[in-house]
Amino acid sequence: MQKISTCLSPALLHLYDVSDQVVVVTDVLRATSAIAEALNGGATEIMPFADLNKCKAMQQYGYIIAAERDGKVVSGFEIGNSPLGFKQMNLISKKIALTTTNGTKAIEMAMAAKAIYTGALTHISALANHLLQLKENVLIVCAGWKDTPCLEDTLFAGALANQLQHKGYELACDSSFMAKQLYLENKNNLFESVKNASHFKRLAHMGIVDDIAYCMQEDIMAIIPKYEPSQKTIKAINI
Amino acid sequence: MQKISTCLSPALLHLYDVSDQVVVVTDVLRATSAIAEALNGGATEIMPFADLNKCKAMQQYGYIIAAERDGKVVSGFEIGNSPLGFKQMNLISKKIALTTTNGTKAIEMAMAAKAIYTGALTHISALANHLLQLKENVLIVCAGWKDTPCLEDTLFAGALANQLQHKGYELACDSSFMAKQLYLENKNNLFESVKNASHFKRLAHMGIVDDIAYCMQEDIMAIIPKYEPSQKTIKAINI
Repeated sequence: MQKISTCLSPALLHLYDVSDQVVVVTDVLRATSAIAEALNGGATEIMPFADLNKCKAMQQYGYIIAAERDGKVVSGFEIGNSPLGFKQMNLISKKIALTTTNGTKAIEMAMAAKAIYTGALTHISALANHLLQLKENVLIVCAGWKDTPCLEDTLFAGALANQLQHKGYELACDSSFMAKQLYLENKNNLFESVKNASHFKRLAHMGIVDDIAYCMQEDIMAIIPKYEPSQKTIKAINI
Repeated sequence: MQKISTCLSPALLHLYDVSDQVVVVTDVLRATSAIAEALNGGATEIMPFADLNKCKAMQQYGYIIAAERDGKVVSGFEIGNSPLGFKQMNLISKKIALTTTNGTKAIEMAMAAKAIYTGALTHISALANHLLQLKENVLIVCAGWKDTPCLEDTLFAGALANQLQHKGYELACDSSFMAKQLYLENKNNLFESVKNASHFKRLAHMGIVDDIAYCMQEDIMAIIPKYEPSQKTIKAINI
């Protein structure tokens, strides 16, 4: 029986053997929601960066450069990590270089995994159905906020754990069980629930409530973003 | 307004400034439940140790020596960390040297706090009422299992966060909010709930189900165990 584990913070990732697992990195507000939106909008690849300058340097190679720090667009970049911002751009056949506070770091830490996907609520069922075909153990890595666990990422983990458990996966750790219970408790109103999150309060102060509402929707697209280590990019795989 | 934060694993403790807070260390299954039971049974002090040999050496000073590793009593020690085991002993005026897998480590990591208490469900309201009198920010440190978050410790954190929030404390982080929601969802049957915990499965294999049922009871005693750094011991404070 395949297992599903949940790592609530990148600071706990050393406790898990990623080499034996398929990893799903999630940063619901907003990096992985933005990645799904950009790929769904026609972008051919997203290259994630931890470093601002390396990200910015990609502009000369024709990349749209996107950077977010502490919830804000970094000066000199075209966009941050707003899914609604990406939605308004023409991204067909475009390439994007993206650096974010938490999401990129989590991807880099999971490099030894059998495969790395990024996940968000907006495309969760497409991702879950794809994972089921792989028949591998799955580890969900919540990006969190500066290494502290976040409600919105935990809700995503619970939603994915719930879907996989229904198809026979075993919840391999208490974090998966707790995340699933939190999701089931809140699934009928994820946006209302996430108003209790510290990250909501942080972003709402910046007037990004529409973005948050957008990110808390389940299954509004059917994209599967996969990180390709050899190319250091995230691409949508064909389904 | 005072704040209540929850650290779901000792491996996340570096993210919190303990020097500005009163810390409550919890290791519900079973160290902090055993500590409360021993003090309630008349023991005058519990001296926690990370190291087995240092703990064992206290026998020559008249201490009862107690050691648990991986859920089992360590060979050569009188008892492990079973609350029901402590309940059967005559502990009046006795001193106990205790080493456990997770709880002791968490106490040692929180040394810089304004004050350190140990907490368990069995005496949660007495502890909560005492904390309210202190009017300090409170950080709950879940001992977890080898640094991974645990359901039972999270439920305790949620129960304490819930009590303090009702008296005006602000939930300062998503972990406190998530723990509170999990507690409220499960409070009417904590023992049934914890049967989903990985630690339950681990301990149940060792036939310690009665101990677990005992630990999942709320408010069966009114003890307040406080760690005294100068004496390196946990004592019951007068109420």
